[in-house]
Amino acid sequence: MSDLAQIGVSGLAVMGRNLARNLARNGFSVALHNRTSAKTKSLVAEHGDEGTFVPTETLEEFVAALERPRRVVIMVKAGAPTDAVIDELVPLLDEGDIVIDCGNAHYADTRRREADLRERGLHFVGAGVSGGEEGALLGPSIMPGGSKESYATLGPMFEKIAAQVDGTPCCVHVGPDGAGHFVKMVHNGIEYADMQLIAEAYDLLRDGLGATPAELAEIFAEWNSGDLSSFLIEITAEVLGHTDAATGSPFVDVVVDEAEQKGTGRWTVQTALDLGVPVTGIAEATFARALSAHPDQRAAARAALPGPSEAAQKVPAEERDAFVDDVRKALYASKVVAYAQGYDQMAAASTEYGWDIDLGAMATIWRGGCIIRARFLDRIKDAYATERPASLLVAPYFRDAVADGQQAWRRVVAHAARAGIPTPGFSSALAYYDALRADRLPAALIQGLRDYFGAHTYRRTDRDGSFHTLWATPDRSEVEA
Amino acid sequence: MSDLAQIGVSGLAVMGRNLARNLARNGFSVALHNRTSAKTKSLVAEHGDEGTFVPTETLEEFVAALERPRRVVIMVKAGAPTDAVIDELVPLLDEGDIVIDCGNAHYADTRRREADLRERGLHFVGAGVSGGEEGALLGPSIMPGGSKESYATLGPMFEKIAAQVDGTPCCVHVGPDGAGHFVKMVHNGIEYADMQLIAEAYDLLRDGLGATPAELAEIFAEWNSGDLSSFLIEITAEVLGHTDAATGSPFVDVVVDEAEQKGTGRWTVQTALDLGVPVTGIAEATFARALSAHPDQRAAARAALPGPSEAAQKVPAEERDAFVDDVRKALYASKVVAYAQGYDQMAAASTEYGWDIDLGAMATIWRGGCIIRARFLDRIKDAYATERPASLLVAPYFRDAVADGQQAWRRVVAHAARAGIPTPGFSSALAYYDALRADRLPAALIQGLRDYFGAHTYRRTDRDGSFHTLWATPDRSEVEA
Repeated sequence: MSDLAQIGVSGLAVMGRNLARNLARNGFSVALHNRTSAKTKSLVAEHGDEGTFVPTETLEEFVAALERPRRVVIMVKAGAPTDAVIDELVPLLDEGDIVIDCGNAHYADTRRREADLRERGLHFVGAGVSGGEEGALLGPSIMPGGSKESYATLGPMFEKIAAQVDGTPCCVHVGPDGAGHFVKMVHNGIEYADMQLIAEAYDLLRDGLGATPAELAEIFAEWNSGDLSSFLIEITAEVLGHTDAATGSPFVDVVVDEAEQKGTGRWTVQTALDLGVPVTGIAEATFARALSAHPDQRAAARAALPGPSEAAQKVPAEERDAFVDDVRKALYASKVVAYAQGYDQMAAASTEYGWDIDLGAMATIWRGGCIIRARFLDRIKDAYATERPASLLVAPYFRDAVADGQQAWRRVVAHAARAGIPTPGFSSALAYYDALRADRLPAALIQGLRDYFGAHTYRRTDRDGSFHTLWATPDRSEVEA
Repeated sequence: MSDLAQIGVSGLAVMGRNLARNLARNGFSVALHNRTSAKTKSLVAEHGDEGTFVPTETLEEFVAALERPRRVVIMVKAGAPTDAVIDELVPLLDEGDIVIDCGNAHYADTRRREADLRERGLHFVGAGVSGGEEGALLGPSIMPGGSKESYATLGPMFEKIAAQVDGTPCCVHVGPDGAGHFVKMVHNGIEYADMQLIAEAYDLLRDGLGATPAELAEIFAEWNSGDLSSFLIEITAEVLGHTDAATGSPFVDVVVDEAEQKGTGRWTVQTALDLGVPVTGIAEATFARALSAHPDQRAAARAALPGPSEAAQKVPAEERDAFVDDVRKALYASKVVAYAQGYDQMAAASTEYGWDIDLGAMATIWRGGCIIRARFLDRIKDAYATERPASLLVAPYFRDAVADGQQAWRRVVAHAARAGIPTPGFSSALAYYDALRADRLPAALIQGLRDYFGAHTYRRTDRDGSFHTLWATPDRSEVEA
């Protein structure tokens, strides 16, 4: 019995390797498998003393090395490579065994795989894992989907290797089938928005104050001691404070200003469009990266398009401190909007797929291990503690915080427009806030236009039904549709 | 011979019916088919005198009534119903026959169907048709994809029934397989953006001036005599000027302010995300509709979220005329951005799929028949007449027009932020303009953060290669990745 490993990890690139080590360091015996055995060997050679590893060469050997029900973590590239491993693995497994995909799969693929394996008597767990290489080793945030039954045997292990905050593990059973990967996708989408907002704050301050990156590093470090305290603000201070050794210039000035992306931001927006949930913050962040990655077009635009006068751009000396504070408040308010939208998206998916996601628990497990970990998340946890607010924006704490900052937010967005600083994230978040609270939206005019050119009909404020105006007739009478 | 019809239309709901009548009125003999023959009969009974119709009861009869190569227009619901008709139709056809889908299919479906039918020796034409019911009858804008061979026989007929502007038909062969439906999708996406911008202009003016819809109708009517002249501006004046007979109130005030959508805006944004093309104007417009359609959330937000003071919202009497002019210029500039983004998306798809789309020709065929028809489009046609600009924004005419309006645009966006009027379209368009022309974007900071937490690497401005900083080491040295 004791020769059999408690869990196996197949796919030993850096994430799989670190997850295997994390498991071993927490006292679990771990069977190892990789398509080429060199990685298996090097893991054991370098870290064999960290715990009990059972290296294997073939998938058959790997499966045979596991206690029943087997827990098989696969950590390979999303898409076809994941399907290939599953196809090879499944014939070797027995009823009740659990296959756990810890990669960044699209939740729709996870739903398909879960249904497929369930039909064969196996459990399939799509588990989002956030925290990068370091998180995988020292304690990530883990978002497992799948059956309750599979979580009963797997959960205690994952909860042990996850990050711990105030004694609570950053891991919880998210919900059936694709729920875990969905929530991880939204986490990444929020991460896109968060980074874009930080980048805009930096841009506004640098331009408005004419400050150096090192000076701005101090501002971000100071912000990190307040409400904005978070991993991303902390490392922004680090990155801005870093000097490039080769040139002696600020590091941020030697980096090419074209942001890349790996796809989860895009997936988040595409899915939100299908669900009918506005996630403008994530969309603007994703598109801002796309825009940055067209250097030829940017060069042509730079040469041709005028901006405002220099004078419009500088913040007068006596207003500098107030401006910094305004930007901080605008960043905070915009961040609340990004989270409110992401939470709406999770709520909509939970309803759509019958996942019954505990949204407060998502904030709880994002407090540590993951990229968006922040003080902020304790407040979100609280906001969902007793009831589900109609929007995070109307939960009392956030409502008051944003109310406190709204005038600053408005000043910052107005300044950016006048000064020619692009703030798609700040501006879009404010527009969302103002649209959500509007007494009447001009959507009524849009409905009127749609009825005019396409007979798409409209509803009336004073009685039920669908109506169409006969626009082409002289008296433009109305008919019930 | 003369008994055989030149073209057939299957699917006689209002769009198919009007297209069939348009063909007959232009001298083509048209075979008719519908799943239930009542619609076929009523068409002939009511409009049989407009031309030569050949009513048929079964699909076999319908196919037998057509001259070879057969031209079969199908006009049924997108998705499964379209596949069902094609599956039923194909066994009855002969080599070289042409199936034309005039519905609003997703271009990916059209690509699949075209490949499938090509393998069976048939032509499949995905043709975008814009202009609603009236356009279908009196002359739509038609965007047919598919083989050149199919266009040779089909094109002259479509060019005859299309809208004509300055003697030029609003129909051209767009490109292979899904090109036609792709272009139609982007057309609809631009239509979403266009309507959202008009709605924001209306909202700004109504709130800022405290004007009645009837007064605003006059402003839009006046705008329609200038650079903004377009079908949508024209009908905006009509809708705003309309009084609801039942209540005596302005019509726009009795319409429920929740905008609906049928999916092409969403498809446009989802596709743009895959292509890496920022279409923020269309995205904000699509999300603005989604936001409006959540009345419970809006009610909660309305009750909880504060806005700016009343005083911030009104435009002083002496600035009213200037404000109206500013809004007009902001609308124009934002509209240029929306088109620039849509054109970028078509250009990217053309490259991706090898479609070789003539972008100037798309402006030509959108000048009449379709919903976004506008004086504007003559300028776009000109911009693409000699070369493809890096962006529509840098084409001389638009560059100058936007340069002329940029300060007004900035004032309007700043006003909206201060006054609490949601202008996601205007604000996002300005942010795009400012990002595109920026010397440096804070995307460099984003790349730095990504390298810090995920070892995603970055490029340097001073030499080639990919680099990674060892952030966890004391000296933070840099390695080539």
